[in-house]
Amino acid sequence: MVASVAPDLTDPHYRAAIVDLLGAIGYGEISACERLTEDAGRAPSLADKLELLQLANAQFANVDPILDGLRDLGVDPYDAMAPFQGPIDAFHEYTAPADWWESLVKAYVGDNLVRDFYREFAVHLDPTTREIIESSLTEDRSEFVVDRVRAGIEADHLVAGRLALWGRRIMGEALTQTQHVAAERESLTEVLAGEVIGGLDLAGIADIFGRITQRHIERMGKLGLEH
Amino acid sequence: MVASVAPDLTDPHYRAAIVDLLGAIGYGEISACERLTEDAGRAPSLADKLELLQLANAQFANVDPILDGLRDLGVDPYDAMAPFQGPIDAFHEYTAPADWWESLVKAYVGDNLVRDFYREFAVHLDPTTREIIESSLTEDRSEFVVDRVRAGIEADHLVAGRLALWGRRIMGEALTQTQHVAAERESLTEVLAGEVIGGLDLAGIADIFGRITQRHIERMGKLGLEH
Repeated sequence: MVASVAPDLTDPHYRAAIVDLLGAIGYGEISACERLTEDAGRAPSLADKLELLQLANAQFANVDPILDGLRDLGVDPYDAMAPFQGPIDAFHEYTAPADWWESLVKAYVGDNLVRDFYREFAVHLDPTTREIIESSLTEDRSEFVVDRVRAGIEADHLVAGRLALWGRRIMGEALTQTQHVAAERESLTEVLAGEVIGGLDLAGIADIFGRITQRHIERMGKLGLEH
Repeated sequence: MVASVAPDLTDPHYRAAIVDLLGAIGYGEISACERLTEDAGRAPSLADKLELLQLANAQFANVDPILDGLRDLGVDPYDAMAPFQGPIDAFHEYTAPADWWESLVKAYVGDNLVRDFYREFAVHLDPTTREIIESSLTEDRSEFVVDRVRAGIEADHLVAGRLALWGRRIMGEALTQTQHVAAERESLTEVLAGEVIGGLDLAGIADIFGRITQRHIERMGKLGLEH
């Protein structure tokens, strides 16, 4: 059990956790950019393709500031990202969309899940790290998905049941991989478990996950899907 | 035979050619972004992957200004791009890299070929179009390829012969698809053939292609490859 401390980058324990967090975010963005671009290949029209490519590129625009943040911490960003390649690649492998609808739902649900997660945790971190993470959360261009999916369900009601299951699977897989990471990266876990940062205890963590889940359910509803 | 005129967007003939040109550039950028991202999946390291993704995203950053330019001409950008999907997709199909080396050479040779082509023609166009096209040419981030390919040849001399052929194939395929486009898009051809724009005749066009070829040969040399 580590004593609870204020978030301070001069503390090596806290610093190690932040290196992990930024490494995970960095590889997550790179990976999201690649997968969204791949998914864009399935778009039924050039306009739809462009929407997904715009999401992909918005993700990529966040990579450089994250890598710079890691360099400022005196860390090789590639070393910092390496431990998260496995779990993040596994997440994408287990949630590889079978068609355009699944790509859309994954883009919307997955992207926003990650944003919620980072937004919730960022407020508890040191100002420098918070700034880096929050500046990567400014733009949300995924709202076009709502119209597309609702129109798809309108045209074919069977789509709704399948996509509702799909949304659950994305959420479940995200949790599974987060747990894998947590099991392997002690310093990161200690932050996520509220053992390092003052003011964020286990009850606080539970609240965070509760809010993230709640917003996921709301988004599924917005798409016209039951959770 | 069309009379030679000053490049003026109020002239419907010239305007139609510019719509074609911007449509081709727009789809070319979208397509390049997708293919470079796909190729990035073959990178031997995360650092190399990022270099190629950066190229892909630099390409994509040019798409919006092109689409806006088309909208300013009162044209649906998707309609304007549609005729060029076939030839540009065909180009990529016939030059699908078999490995990382071929991806690198294609990124470097193909990207710069396109840039030279647009740069040469842009100076003969109206100021608005020239501005749109030239602003899309500012950033060249492909220089990292030179080091990588030279190191690859150093490590395995057999690579050089294969990649030299590969560079020729990319150039040849680019010319073939340009000819296909020219055969189908009369208004564009008239511009490229110097029949529409005053001050750019067939001899001028020949000079342009001569310079483009010369720079291609120089680039191959820079990579350590014979043309």
